[in-house]
Amino acid sequence: MRVLVLGGDGYLGWPTAMYLSGRGHSVAVMDNFSKRSWEREIGVEPLFHIRTLSDRIDCWRELTGKDIDLFVGDLQDYAAVEGALDLFRPEAIVHYGQQPSAPFSMMDRERSVFTQVNNLVSTLNVLWAIKKINPACHLVKLGTMGEYGTPNIDIEEGFIEIEHKGRKDVLPFPCQPGSFYHLSKVHDSHNLRLACKIWKLAATDLNQGVVYGIETDETCLHEALETSFHYDEVFGTALNRFCVQAAAGIPLTIYGKGSQKRGFLNIKDTLRCVELAILNPARQGEYRVFNQFTEIFTVAELAHLVVDQARKLGFAVKVQHAENPRIEAEEHYYNPTHTRLRDLGLQPHHLSDVLIKDMLRRIREAKGRIKQEIIMPRVRWDSGQREAPQLSVAEAGV
Amino acid sequence: MRVLVLGGDGYLGWPTAMYLSGRGHSVAVMDNFSKRSWEREIGVEPLFHIRTLSDRIDCWRELTGKDIDLFVGDLQDYAAVEGALDLFRPEAIVHYGQQPSAPFSMMDRERSVFTQVNNLVSTLNVLWAIKKINPACHLVKLGTMGEYGTPNIDIEEGFIEIEHKGRKDVLPFPCQPGSFYHLSKVHDSHNLRLACKIWKLAATDLNQGVVYGIETDETCLHEALETSFHYDEVFGTALNRFCVQAAAGIPLTIYGKGSQKRGFLNIKDTLRCVELAILNPARQGEYRVFNQFTEIFTVAELAHLVVDQARKLGFAVKVQHAENPRIEAEEHYYNPTHTRLRDLGLQPHHLSDVLIKDMLRRIREAKGRIKQEIIMPRVRWDSGQREAPQLSVAEAGV
Repeated sequence: MRVLVLGGDGYLGWPTAMYLSGRGHSVAVMDNFSKRSWEREIGVEPLFHIRTLSDRIDCWRELTGKDIDLFVGDLQDYAAVEGALDLFRPEAIVHYGQQPSAPFSMMDRERSVFTQVNNLVSTLNVLWAIKKINPACHLVKLGTMGEYGTPNIDIEEGFIEIEHKGRKDVLPFPCQPGSFYHLSKVHDSHNLRLACKIWKLAATDLNQGVVYGIETDETCLHEALETSFHYDEVFGTALNRFCVQAAAGIPLTIYGKGSQKRGFLNIKDTLRCVELAILNPARQGEYRVFNQFTEIFTVAELAHLVVDQARKLGFAVKVQHAENPRIEAEEHYYNPTHTRLRDLGLQPHHLSDVLIKDMLRRIREAKGRIKQEIIMPRVRWDSGQREAPQLSVAEAGV
Repeated sequence: MRVLVLGGDGYLGWPTAMYLSGRGHSVAVMDNFSKRSWEREIGVEPLFHIRTLSDRIDCWRELTGKDIDLFVGDLQDYAAVEGALDLFRPEAIVHYGQQPSAPFSMMDRERSVFTQVNNLVSTLNVLWAIKKINPACHLVKLGTMGEYGTPNIDIEEGFIEIEHKGRKDVLPFPCQPGSFYHLSKVHDSHNLRLACKIWKLAATDLNQGVVYGIETDETCLHEALETSFHYDEVFGTALNRFCVQAAAGIPLTIYGKGSQKRGFLNIKDTLRCVELAILNPARQGEYRVFNQFTEIFTVAELAHLVVDQARKLGFAVKVQHAENPRIEAEEHYYNPTHTRLRDLGLQPHHLSDVLIKDMLRRIREAKGRIKQEIIMPRVRWDSGQREAPQLSVAEAGV
């Protein structure tokens, strides 16, 4: 299938492009490298040195004989979007091309507005371009489990049957997103639903959990194919950040009590989920939602899993609780449904001791590159300011 | 109370400013007159000649001795928003300052993106400015009943208790808006909810029905105080448009079957509802929603009410059905709750034969200014194109 990966330079976009290319799809990527600018703005960088996207594409071609086309352009620039669709004529578009960080969106007014405008306009442009160039093209859009928030009822996959005062309907699942970033994804979901309805487009919204992992089968083929692994407070995710703290010999920082539950998945499963969505497309006029995660952990559970493995490797590690910079429920019910991707054939890579050990070893090799000062949470949800957090005494016995 | 009315040049903003000023509040208005540009872009204008906002403010001062402060600025320009809040120090902000038309937002890509960015950024800027200048300031934001769409269950006021698999929660009412404009209002609602939660702001979202009427007690005081009355397909609303068609002696155009049900209210009730919200503010940290309409009609019922009164005035009128340019359910359940404003003391001006006759007479005086060619619906939801609609034979006997 002809697949265009938007945001093809990123942590997930680049491995997805290789994975799909390796499995026989004809792949193009589009990116304007703005993520690299946001990194520079706030003074962070991926743990491992990342080659330019062109170099990675060259390396992939040399190793596999397969081409990945590259479009350099901003998704906020409609002409660039339409041009790429017109030239490449994708049958499916995988849309990762957005500002992906909640803390970034909470930092100040400018970044909250930027995040929402950037993310919203990118998706609107993609929808209008699909409508114009090829309405049969299937849009696979990355959403987030964070769109739902933590309601006191089971979270369904995008829609819920509601019985109310003796009548029934199936309606969009009510969303309570917790940051301007998560809000932007909810805005997208609503826009997608309408576009599918009025223009008969086909879209799949992958409401993804928190992704962890450094490697995929393809990034392992050559050092030059590595993807950008973030561990800072802004672009890093929980497990990745904990592994870096453990490898660096600094305490693992849990936000608040750490009893917040979230859905997680291995980066390898992200790639497979995207392919499953592509191979089993939505119908024309259909907007569907898959909850894309494989396991639920509390943040504290994750930290303790990392501590256990780190100690087995002989690292001296402990856990500390930082004042939660976010405004979120720490004790809450959480039981989201996630059967649709498994029904399509997903066989999860569950989080294993082996994987954590491998991550710890791999990160340990790059210990000299770890910048401790970018890990601690400083972006506060209440004030938008970047302030050093209050830390509690390290947990005894952990 | 000190009240800043955003969008104070508009159909509702200007009468609201006078009404609140007349009732003893200290009022300022802010506008950048962009609505006037949108009118020029698509070649429409209000039925009655509207004085400049400065002239209206001068006239109001001469008649009543009361000042209305004027801030000229774009709500997308944060410095202008913060400046107005800093200078005027409002205790309440009434936010009408948005692109208000569904057809305008469906016309093409540029206008869909413009509508969403304009509306979203205006509200974000207002929220950030309130947070910075005075978090105690109560935001009264105009939403729309169109945010809900037409679910097969009763529509509640913003939130609904859902029982699901043996558990319960009160969650945001699921929204199925039917245009990029209506979507922008849903995006706003979600943004408001988060801002109230994390910054402890106080906001009331007035999910308003379709407003009709030409006059308020204040616009009647002097010809120079009139507000902009639109009857074109883009900025005109159903009853207003029907009255103009009847007065012009052209058939009343019903979109599709005309069995679409909507909530309606008199422009005078809009002003009172806004005041009731201001006088009974949300608590700090509270985001609340009031459904703001007083009666439900089908579009065909409205047309027939107008026909009846027009015939009594001796106008030769008939009704015709135009192919529905919108994509919407024409046969649907509709029973939205709307008790919260009545509980606060709203005494509705119900739609009466007298009001319709008054509107018809008033419009008849301006018959020479009616441009028939701007009334017919040409913006199609499916294509975004402006095309002449298919018309059915005029209804016999109506």
